[in-house]
Amino acid sequence: MNVVNNKWIGQRTIRPDGVDKVTGRAAFAADTTMPGMIWGKVLRSPHPHARIRSINTAKAEALPGVKAVVTSRDIVDFTIEKGAVMLGIQDMRWMCRNVMARDKALFPGHPVAAVAATTEAIAAEACQLIEVDYEVLPWAIEIDDAMKPDAPILHEFNKFDGKPSNIMGRIESKKGDIAQGFKDADVVIERSFTTRPVHQGYIEPHACLISVAADGKTTIWSSSQGQFMVRAMTSMLTGIPQSDIRAIPAEIGGGFGGKTIVYLEPLATLLARKSGRPVKMVMTREEVMRATGPTSGSKSTVKIGAKKDGTIVAAHGTFYLQAGAFPGSPIRGAVGCSFAPYDIPHVLSEGFDVCSNRSKVAAYRAPGAPIGAYAVECVLDELADSLKIDPLELRLKNAAKEGTKAAHGPVFPRIGYIETLEAARNHPHYAAPLGKYQGRGVASGFWFNAGGESSAQVNITEDGNVVVTTGHPDIGGSRAGIANICAELLGIDYKRISVIIGDTQTVGFSNLTGGSRVLFASAMVVTQAADKVIATLRERAAKIWEIDPEAVKWENGAAHPVSPNAGQFEPLTLADLAEKAPSQGGPIGASVQLNTQGAEGGFGTHICDVEVDVDLGIVRVIRYTAVQDVGRAVHPSYVEGQLQGGVAQGIGWALNEEYIYNKDGKVDNPGFLDYRMPVCSDLPMLDCALVEVPNPKHPQGIKGVGEVPLVPVMAAVANAVHDALGKRFYSLPMSPPKVSEALDAPTQLAAE
Amino acid sequence: MNVVNNKWIGQRTIRPDGVDKVTGRAAFAADTTMPGMIWGKVLRSPHPHARIRSINTAKAEALPGVKAVVTSRDIVDFTIEKGAVMLGIQDMRWMCRNVMARDKALFPGHPVAAVAATTEAIAAEACQLIEVDYEVLPWAIEIDDAMKPDAPILHEFNKFDGKPSNIMGRIESKKGDIAQGFKDADVVIERSFTTRPVHQGYIEPHACLISVAADGKTTIWSSSQGQFMVRAMTSMLTGIPQSDIRAIPAEIGGGFGGKTIVYLEPLATLLARKSGRPVKMVMTREEVMRATGPTSGSKSTVKIGAKKDGTIVAAHGTFYLQAGAFPGSPIRGAVGCSFAPYDIPHVLSEGFDVCSNRSKVAAYRAPGAPIGAYAVECVLDELADSLKIDPLELRLKNAAKEGTKAAHGPVFPRIGYIETLEAARNHPHYAAPLGKYQGRGVASGFWFNAGGESSAQVNITEDGNVVVTTGHPDIGGSRAGIANICAELLGIDYKRISVIIGDTQTVGFSNLTGGSRVLFASAMVVTQAADKVIATLRERAAKIWEIDPEAVKWENGAAHPVSPNAGQFEPLTLADLAEKAPSQGGPIGASVQLNTQGAEGGFGTHICDVEVDVDLGIVRVIRYTAVQDVGRAVHPSYVEGQLQGGVAQGIGWALNEEYIYNKDGKVDNPGFLDYRMPVCSDLPMLDCALVEVPNPKHPQGIKGVGEVPLVPVMAAVANAVHDALGKRFYSLPMSPPKVSEALDAPTQLAAE
Repeated sequence: MNVVNNKWIGQRTIRPDGVDKVTGRAAFAADTTMPGMIWGKVLRSPHPHARIRSINTAKAEALPGVKAVVTSRDIVDFTIEKGAVMLGIQDMRWMCRNVMARDKALFPGHPVAAVAATTEAIAAEACQLIEVDYEVLPWAIEIDDAMKPDAPILHEFNKFDGKPSNIMGRIESKKGDIAQGFKDADVVIERSFTTRPVHQGYIEPHACLISVAADGKTTIWSSSQGQFMVRAMTSMLTGIPQSDIRAIPAEIGGGFGGKTIVYLEPLATLLARKSGRPVKMVMTREEVMRATGPTSGSKSTVKIGAKKDGTIVAAHGTFYLQAGAFPGSPIRGAVGCSFAPYDIPHVLSEGFDVCSNRSKVAAYRAPGAPIGAYAVECVLDELADSLKIDPLELRLKNAAKEGTKAAHGPVFPRIGYIETLEAARNHPHYAAPLGKYQGRGVASGFWFNAGGESSAQVNITEDGNVVVTTGHPDIGGSRAGIANICAELLGIDYKRISVIIGDTQTVGFSNLTGGSRVLFASAMVVTQAADKVIATLRERAAKIWEIDPEAVKWENGAAHPVSPNAGQFEPLTLADLAEKAPSQGGPIGASVQLNTQGAEGGFGTHICDVEVDVDLGIVRVIRYTAVQDVGRAVHPSYVEGQLQGGVAQGIGWALNEEYIYNKDGKVDNPGFLDYRMPVCSDLPMLDCALVEVPNPKHPQGIKGVGEVPLVPVMAAVANAVHDALGKRFYSLPMSPPKVSEALDAPTQLAAE
Repeated sequence: MNVVNNKWIGQRTIRPDGVDKVTGRAAFAADTTMPGMIWGKVLRSPHPHARIRSINTAKAEALPGVKAVVTSRDIVDFTIEKGAVMLGIQDMRWMCRNVMARDKALFPGHPVAAVAATTEAIAAEACQLIEVDYEVLPWAIEIDDAMKPDAPILHEFNKFDGKPSNIMGRIESKKGDIAQGFKDADVVIERSFTTRPVHQGYIEPHACLISVAADGKTTIWSSSQGQFMVRAMTSMLTGIPQSDIRAIPAEIGGGFGGKTIVYLEPLATLLARKSGRPVKMVMTREEVMRATGPTSGSKSTVKIGAKKDGTIVAAHGTFYLQAGAFPGSPIRGAVGCSFAPYDIPHVLSEGFDVCSNRSKVAAYRAPGAPIGAYAVECVLDELADSLKIDPLELRLKNAAKEGTKAAHGPVFPRIGYIETLEAARNHPHYAAPLGKYQGRGVASGFWFNAGGESSAQVNITEDGNVVVTTGHPDIGGSRAGIANICAELLGIDYKRISVIIGDTQTVGFSNLTGGSRVLFASAMVVTQAADKVIATLRERAAKIWEIDPEAVKWENGAAHPVSPNAGQFEPLTLADLAEKAPSQGGPIGASVQLNTQGAEGGFGTHICDVEVDVDLGIVRVIRYTAVQDVGRAVHPSYVEGQLQGGVAQGIGWALNEEYIYNKDGKVDNPGFLDYRMPVCSDLPMLDCALVEVPNPKHPQGIKGVGEVPLVPVMAAVANAVHDALGKRFYSLPMSPPKVSEALDAPTQLAAE
């Protein structure tokens, strides 16, 4: 598979952030304090849908200890009329209304006002003193309700099919002619599915500390998936120029896409500016659950037609995704990724973005793709059943490969999907025997992976070591990966390299930590910067030896003459050249900024075994193997961690996680006790098999690995449950009540 | 004077750090805190000279609350045998023994051990429990005592003229043949002078907070004149690689050279590593006065010979400078600068570095130069008197100019010394009448100015503003100066530019804030980085317009076609191009690292009026005008501030500041109450006249301005006192007791 044997790339080196994290020294946003700091709190709408007639903050402002109160009047109105602003996967045009309700509150938990006071308790008390005159409106929470002809409309200006609608838009990917395709098919299966919104479930709630000086110079400490995103959003909503905002990234306790947007930072900035005091805001878990994330709930219909030999000839997917209170669901992921693993002549994949009275969805690990894959990969399982073909063989027969034109556009370069299918087929897991009430399912998944802007500096210290600065929060191990790559390029021990995450004012623009882009893009800019440094080092050695730089090579951390003919010189190490730097032209370092291209999509194939407790309706995953085309595993432990983490989240999505709404349209389980995410004791060891097919468009063959592993999981679990019980679930989660009910029911279960 | 009229360069723009400083929000090192932080304290020698037989820390370690104790055993021994390490103007070979006494304590206040404990009080109590077995040795504090044949020797290995000696070295500058020169002279005047050590007197005591993780990753928050110096010194003395030390510069409350070395950082690092807790250390004022700085006391003899017409034909200076406990006084400044303003055919300037039992001297504003100028400029005053020539005319007759070869080596390019003399001569101050007991003195001074390594990044934000990052603490207004320069180069309002001081791991290596180098060197690297950014902007516009980049010019903050022939296009502003950056190649920014050359020396000529209270012996400065060749005043308010600050410090040095030693060899006045620095009520408004002769070796004509203004002051004051009283002082300070005594004495006063 053309993987070069490297000295450092591929090593499980000690993670640079490990000690700080396990000893509790790592500084997260909530750990930061400042002299004179006060506390901010948010007043949130109790109603799912209400017109705000007026807000009276006088009593709150009069409460001793209150230093500032802000409402939507303080926020720059940056709505669609002012032009589109796309950032990451999310349409940010509505951000100003998501961080603070303007004319209407659109979900329970929607911020209505914010207070800063000398203590958290006073701020909370002041929130209760704010008088909001609401006109309560009818609401719609579920997709079906929101799409009814008489549904209450969230955004009155919006029209679909010429009528006011909560359907905010439609996109499609198309290839060939599905009508013709289905005519060619010997067998056609069409099924509908529903999934529930699930929260990203990061352990660390949103938090920030913000100081605004009298001249507007602003410093933000916050946990996010992008300090530059924080700067841009805060600038946009407060009117403070980006050059005056220094956004300092804290360590981050999980994001999974949910921290690619801001909730608190603009409010804390406004409160800090108004009060003249640094303002700290930390969400409670309840606030996180009510007002941030989750990903979309969905309703999908997938129809696939095949020849008797298993050749798929046509596929049609229709995906309705909840956007929450404002437009912008991850429909592109559902539409684009679902059929991408397959070479199908006729495809139509269409998606609809549907608003309803729940919190605006945020990105969640391969946003949209797991929703689509759940439907497609379940239908493929039924197809394999009906054609009596092994489900991996069915996929192998139709697998996308180099040269395949995907329905969503690109022609694949050399990819590793087939290798994942073969590795899964040959894995001992796939042949292992199963017991009673046990079943095995397989599923595949695809994620686009992103490139985009990254910046890096590589500086040589005076003592001949290396500092690399990049601009993305390290969530998945980018510091360790960059250290390995830099050690490889410079030919020195990885321990001599420190990788630092710069703030917005000390490193060049770097886009979000998201889209599985960070190591892909960082490695590109770091490689170019390291190459520049090596060129400088060769020039310096050449100058000292009085030979041409072309006659100098860099090897094992030192400059050498390219051959004995070039001259007899003792090698000059990095430390030697660093010591001589002052007299040879100054400090040695380089910086590079790029809009990186060539982030090719990744594929995974998973095998899942379940055992069903038929008395209690509990589905237990008893064995799981995730096979993935990872490009080049720069630091295999981190790659495996990504695979394991994605699978764990998918198992929660498949089996347990859902919001319970009460009759008032409010979530009744806004905490980890009742919103049931899988914990260690729920899971077996999650096995990984890394398939390394280097990305031909990357200097180290890297492709993103962090999102693919969530994509196939719900389908793999659902297919395993079907194998165990002979019954198929068309709606998630497959929670104990639902499984118990199914076990009692005579037939297959339809989508809810 | 060839000064270009600029839009922003030369403007008194609002200082970017002003609001934070006047509102108390600026974060100095002592403002920083960390969770789990403990406090460090230093046990200091009570003796001026003592062998340390043993140190027993057992009782201190056993005190509840004590978390770590360190002694010299914990510090890497980096003495002369290990090779020379020069950093800034100071010989750092002895740093390990200055931060902690090893075999001998060499001054009262010399650190002997350090303790970290949960409170400052416990740390202080623990220091008292440390048992140090001292063998008290004879000591020498004054230069004369230290040079006596039977003087106690501080460093036994050191020999001078073949004998153990406290004279640690001799340097000289030489030109022509002084024997011949004095033969040619019609008049020769030779005088001897003494000056006292004076402290830099920064308001902010040394402070740091240091965290060392279990894997050695170290974060330092401290106030210093160079975060890279802090990193280098701490690395050297603790063995932690530089790549693992992130030194974050706090705002600095004055340094004046005294914060170009470390005292606390290595100790706090060792305590933090040993205790596993972040350690904070803050010196008391008493510790600052006993154990940091000051500059040298001195003993000088200057002999000058001239023709009757005032042409100086020979000069000989001999300068003995106290180094304190370890070698390394600023003799180079005294030897090199003293005669530099004059074109003299025969010069010998020699300097001796003398150790004695007082704290190791640190750099102080134009280190050494004011000491030499005091002697030379007083002798010139006597020469003018004896030749009946106006003292400014005497200096004009002999003034160095373009092409003059200075005794210390360089041939001057275009310089502005003559212009300062002419400006002084033409200044209304010089012709103003004087009253009884009033007198007027003039004096000139020179300082080398330094270049050296600097790094900068210029990044364009997404909203089309600018962030500049440099690597030097801003003491004298570099942020404001860089904003003006960058506004000029990019053609935008200076408010759109934020200038940030990066830490050691987020910006390339940048040498100290010292040697009046910062704006000179920063402007060079920022100019090159801005040029690169402009080149990118022109390329982007060219690409958008589909014309050649050569056909695009950058003007008034926008890209324009060079001429209508190049095409008809609407200008593309910085904001336009920033918005288009993602699709046009990515983020826009550049970084530059240089070892800058071409920092030419600067000259000042001062006029001082004094009035003597003959009853109390008090000398009051009643009018003062500082004229200086400032190259290009990028931000005139800051330049004037530098001039005023230097003059105020020189007036203190001239009239009041001195350490009072008791019979035990300890300082009796270690505080601002008894160590009398001038305050506002002691001083008149200090006037400035800026002479702008652009430095031909700098893109904006910049030369250093911060140190020259201290150089002429003591001589100008002494010459004014002579003019007022007809009596000349050969020793500083001209404090009330000394002036009273002189008023009662029949004749001139010899050097002490």
